[in-house]
Amino acid sequence: MLLPMRKVKVPLGSRSYEIHIAGGLLAGIGKACARLSLGKRCAIVTDDQVAPLYAKKVEQSLQAAGFDTFTFVVPHGEPSKRLEMAQRGYDALAAHRLERGSFILALGGGVVGDLAGFLAATYLRGIAFVQVPTTLLAQVDSSVGGKVGINLKAGKNLVGAFHQPRAVFCDLDTLDTLSEREFRAGMAEVIKYGVIYDARLFARLERELPQLLRREAKPLGAVIARCCEIKAEVVGQDETESGLRAILNFGHTIGHAIEATAGYGKFLHGEAISIGQVAAAQLSVALTGLSPADAARIEDLLAKTGLPTQLKVDARRRQRMMDAMKLDKKSSGGEVKFVLAKKIGSVLFGQKVPADLIHQAISPK
Amino acid sequence: MLLPMRKVKVPLGSRSYEIHIAGGLLAGIGKACARLSLGKRCAIVTDDQVAPLYAKKVEQSLQAAGFDTFTFVVPHGEPSKRLEMAQRGYDALAAHRLERGSFILALGGGVVGDLAGFLAATYLRGIAFVQVPTTLLAQVDSSVGGKVGINLKAGKNLVGAFHQPRAVFCDLDTLDTLSEREFRAGMAEVIKYGVIYDARLFARLERELPQLLRREAKPLGAVIARCCEIKAEVVGQDETESGLRAILNFGHTIGHAIEATAGYGKFLHGEAISIGQVAAAQLSVALTGLSPADAARIEDLLAKTGLPTQLKVDARRRQRMMDAMKLDKKSSGGEVKFVLAKKIGSVLFGQKVPADLIHQAISPK
Repeated sequence: MLLPMRKVKVPLGSRSYEIHIAGGLLAGIGKACARLSLGKRCAIVTDDQVAPLYAKKVEQSLQAAGFDTFTFVVPHGEPSKRLEMAQRGYDALAAHRLERGSFILALGGGVVGDLAGFLAATYLRGIAFVQVPTTLLAQVDSSVGGKVGINLKAGKNLVGAFHQPRAVFCDLDTLDTLSEREFRAGMAEVIKYGVIYDARLFARLERELPQLLRREAKPLGAVIARCCEIKAEVVGQDETESGLRAILNFGHTIGHAIEATAGYGKFLHGEAISIGQVAAAQLSVALTGLSPADAARIEDLLAKTGLPTQLKVDARRRQRMMDAMKLDKKSSGGEVKFVLAKKIGSVLFGQKVPADLIHQAISPK
Repeated sequence: MLLPMRKVKVPLGSRSYEIHIAGGLLAGIGKACARLSLGKRCAIVTDDQVAPLYAKKVEQSLQAAGFDTFTFVVPHGEPSKRLEMAQRGYDALAAHRLERGSFILALGGGVVGDLAGFLAATYLRGIAFVQVPTTLLAQVDSSVGGKVGINLKAGKNLVGAFHQPRAVFCDLDTLDTLSEREFRAGMAEVIKYGVIYDARLFARLERELPQLLRREAKPLGAVIARCCEIKAEVVGQDETESGLRAILNFGHTIGHAIEATAGYGKFLHGEAISIGQVAAAQLSVALTGLSPADAARIEDLLAKTGLPTQLKVDARRRQRMMDAMKLDKKSSGGEVKFVLAKKIGSVLFGQKVPADLIHQAISPK
């Protein structure tokens, strides 16, 4: 893949960093890390699906650049984002004598990035880390912005920290090995950026969807870079989510409730927030003036991407979802706050929604 | 106890806070918290020794001031500072629906403060917390400065965060219920402040030791306030230990190694750092020009306080201590750095010490 290297800067003062987007990045990861003034010792955190594909290449590149590496492999999937796995990780870091100057490299999707980032945020009260996201979802969303964390039984990401990476390397080649389902799930976050921030991006996605679903490198690289730019702009203005950053949660309030009540792993994150975005669009028509035509475009694009847009739930499941929403990090005084759209490309955060409307949106018709 | 309220400010910009030192503070803790613009919901974290003595008083005071409280009680002692206990704490916080605006109140000694602070640092990516230290050690040291954390099998405080409390309330009355052994262990940290920063404080401790050991409120309150002032000054200049803050670790490098290799709980922290300070003083005579007379004064004051000053170790234990030191957070490139004294009241940090000298200092004679 001979495409230009795209770079996006995340502007956070002394914690600023760059996102590198290109094909063939993995082979040069050692040299790239050497430019970041990191310590000699590095823990590669990855999972049992990604390791066979890419771990060796990354290890060799780092070792050729003079780093001492060891690799900590976790089972793939959401259940690895829990405290017992963090405990094993800590013990492995200590056994390999990682020091304050050492660093962690996260090689994998969102689960690996969130767990590795949480280890980096808390081991020795915080060491450096580098994100090497290998899924579409992680490249456009979870690897950028410093949110790291693990799940509790009571809900997703209830334990965590803000800990910015020192750099993010998105190798487009790694997307070729994603399953169809995972790739489409990642597209749900891509579409979200169009809805919350950029009507032109949304229109482009409508236009170029077939090429994107075929993973054509040129349009895909451009779209990923645009998503990273949007995330960088938002995070640069509000690192710790005291305000604006909440817009990134469009579709996530109901989406998280779906994930929490379905048992983690049943829905991919992107699938759950696809349903959540359709529900949020419906609430937006009722409450914030989104036109029915725009709501239909949102649902349509998600459906054409092959993502679920509805969920049939019974009264009991609906109640459990309402309870899960109240436990969401964004709730206050027991009140659930939503991100709702005014039109495609523009949203409002902190919107109160009456319970009966939430009920309707959860199980439509 | 009718003594003036003493206040010490910890100057950390938007994260500044006050340490309040007086008798009879617990009864007014609710009103004091109400002045801090905290959320309505509060988790009191305490242990099974402190809870029967003070939990009811604190709960009642908070509830009278309009707070919703629940109390999470852990077994007393160092083994509670581990991840399994944090897991139970997280689950309890979620079950009681603590939100971003809620807060945690740590009521107890250093173990409770460190665990509660780690929960506060990581639950929902960080919520507010208030320290109510009830031991001498916690009042002069661990409750101030925002270092929170838990232990790994491989060593103390290897997992943690920097998370400043919103306020610290030191109720001198709570010291009356400390065991003789715990009180004396706390004095080891008090003496440390004299060694590292304040020759006048050291001389005062020599002079007033009998009154202090009788826990006479007036001199004790003054000494605790002075220790907090020193800690506040140091932390205000170097919050995350990139330099100066390291001086607070005088006696701690060997002290931590003693704790790690003895099995936690065998030595109280203060006892281990008493031995560590005597060893560091000995190294200081060899390397940084501390006079033998000053080294003798340090050993003498610790001994008169009733603290251990030596440890007999065999070659195997010594090696395990050396290994533990290499894993210390302060080590880099496998090299152990010490804080050493030039004279009483003045120390240097980041001092390299040859291994053979460490050997000698660990098992003298």
